[in-house]
Amino acid sequence: MFLRGEKMKNAVKKEVLKFETVFLRDDDVLVIIDQTLLPNEEKNLELTEQKDIWDAIYKLQVRGAPAIGVAAAFAAYLASKEITEEDFNSFYPEFKKKLDYINSSRPTAVNLSWALERMEKCALVNKDKPLDEIRAILRKEAIEIREEDIAVCRKIGEYGAELLSDGMGILTHCNAGALATVKYGTALAGIYVSMENGATDIRVYCDETRPLLQGARLSAFELVSAGADTTVICDNMASSIMKKGLIDIIFVGCDRVAANGDAANKIGTSGLAIIARHYGLPFYVCCPTSTIDIETKTGDDIHIEQRKPEEVTEMWYERRMAPKEAKVYNPAFDVTDNSLITGIITEFGILRPPYDEAIKRIMDEKNDRR
Amino acid sequence: MFLRGEKMKNAVKKEVLKFETVFLRDDDVLVIIDQTLLPNEEKNLELTEQKDIWDAIYKLQVRGAPAIGVAAAFAAYLASKEITEEDFNSFYPEFKKKLDYINSSRPTAVNLSWALERMEKCALVNKDKPLDEIRAILRKEAIEIREEDIAVCRKIGEYGAELLSDGMGILTHCNAGALATVKYGTALAGIYVSMENGATDIRVYCDETRPLLQGARLSAFELVSAGADTTVICDNMASSIMKKGLIDIIFVGCDRVAANGDAANKIGTSGLAIIARHYGLPFYVCCPTSTIDIETKTGDDIHIEQRKPEEVTEMWYERRMAPKEAKVYNPAFDVTDNSLITGIITEFGILRPPYDEAIKRIMDEKNDRR
Repeated sequence: MFLRGEKMKNAVKKEVLKFETVFLRDDDVLVIIDQTLLPNEEKNLELTEQKDIWDAIYKLQVRGAPAIGVAAAFAAYLASKEITEEDFNSFYPEFKKKLDYINSSRPTAVNLSWALERMEKCALVNKDKPLDEIRAILRKEAIEIREEDIAVCRKIGEYGAELLSDGMGILTHCNAGALATVKYGTALAGIYVSMENGATDIRVYCDETRPLLQGARLSAFELVSAGADTTVICDNMASSIMKKGLIDIIFVGCDRVAANGDAANKIGTSGLAIIARHYGLPFYVCCPTSTIDIETKTGDDIHIEQRKPEEVTEMWYERRMAPKEAKVYNPAFDVTDNSLITGIITEFGILRPPYDEAIKRIMDEKNDRR
Repeated sequence: MFLRGEKMKNAVKKEVLKFETVFLRDDDVLVIIDQTLLPNEEKNLELTEQKDIWDAIYKLQVRGAPAIGVAAAFAAYLASKEITEEDFNSFYPEFKKKLDYINSSRPTAVNLSWALERMEKCALVNKDKPLDEIRAILRKEAIEIREEDIAVCRKIGEYGAELLSDGMGILTHCNAGALATVKYGTALAGIYVSMENGATDIRVYCDETRPLLQGARLSAFELVSAGADTTVICDNMASSIMKKGLIDIIFVGCDRVAANGDAANKIGTSGLAIIARHYGLPFYVCCPTSTIDIETKTGDDIHIEQRKPEEVTEMWYERRMAPKEAKVYNPAFDVTDNSLITGIITEFGILRPPYDEAIKRIMDEKNDRR
């Protein structure tokens, strides 16, 4: 039996994650694991130019909202070093231009603009200091954003781990793991924390997650590299393995939680929740409180992006899988009704229904702590 | 409004199916549409040698239990022509050897051995006739097997069509269409019969059906070629389109129905049935009564084939989609509990729960008609 509850905290027995998604090397080189090559090749990008970081974000070499935010923060710091101006008034317009440029790499990722705004504010607050000092402060701020991400995910992992014990089978969808954040991830954090604390017999099942296969390519990669017992299934096999009794709990990530607990996540999540309910299995959404949007009343108010048909019809853009004349419906996300969610695991604890009250309480508490 | 109920029968307004899966040309050439090339290329195979027919079945150029049975029946007839012996006693051992050879192309397909046994019986019953006459009788028998398949599917289509009307959205899984039979199919038969009778506004959604994509490749191909409004979705999008109100009814095929109505079909069917139930949508299994196996008491008694991991991890065997170290669970089928099935559409009508009674009744009736 591995450590659980209070005993587990700060008691990492062994590190299981062999890679870090995004970090700044001491020589100011930004190191990013290239996710487009996974699982076939594990290769780090070493970036110093903002154009290259822009490319890495645009091409999904780094993906997952938190990981993108951290990469952007480092890009902002590295940009500040490229500006040769001597006083802040000449520096700032150049800096702002570079931030806007980085922000254009993926306009819809909230963490991207959030991180860049935070870096900009940091520069403005310190504008009366010498520029070299400002650059050093920006470096520190970017590192802090990164460390905060690790700490939040670690907390989610601790709460998630309390629900796990050896012998359990866990099903996850898409990639809400270490690769989507700096370390630990959200949906997979409980698994890694359990393993760090000595769990040796938990089985993880990854929905491959069509159309882009983030489950088969990314979740399976990071779980295997952490030494987890990992099985890939096609999305349509979830009912079959639940019926066989192989699954005890479901952990998924989340892109936005509405004020009533409705949760938008990768397409397929809502169907999985319905099937889990049919078999009486607990279904948990794992996300930082920054994902909760109290301005969005219910899931019906969440706009769902439709992506291009070729993702479905051309497998890896090499060969056509469906007739040209057939239409394609390709939503990136769906909304899981709050009634299907057993709990929402955040860095401040596990929320339980009724979610409107639980969410209001936790967001008020969070504001009080500020 | 298109024709429905009694009026629709024998009232084909227009043919919508532009191809036939398997047929014997007047010059004794067996014509088979090559399903391995679909949807990229529509090409007919023209076969006369039994070795080539064996290959076509083995390589899945012709697939779907009923279509395989018909191809095998024609192969048996063509085999009879290759034997130059002059009397039945010399002819029969040669013929039997050829039947066994054809039967080895896909040993698990029930219709294959059923069709070959019927052809063998046909030869034996007529053994006192001259060999040329026997060959002519075998030709007629194979054509009859083919026509019976068309008639059974047409009846299933008529019953299915009674559940449809213009404006409806129909979701289907895998390919239980014309390509799996000679014409009409089972799950898609109701759609084609409706269209033949004037339906112009029915929308069909095809689950792509991982891992082998029979929905995207085959169902979408035949529906598009018949002029149906066809949309391909990934399997995990079913919940999303049902929630949007795009689906009114679900039609799936079936590989085996147990005596209690549990239905084994392509992997993903049971999850789809659970999701349909959640949204209150009718879920129909469509199959000839030959698919009902009263010797199998419940779905638990149906053995589910596990297929090779590469189907999941290597997309079309070209590029690896999951890490080598990850395990794969790849069942070909799953079992849908009878409680999730609204009705079972057969050539003798639509069975309703309780299925144990309905199945017993229809199988007794079927035996009485013989």
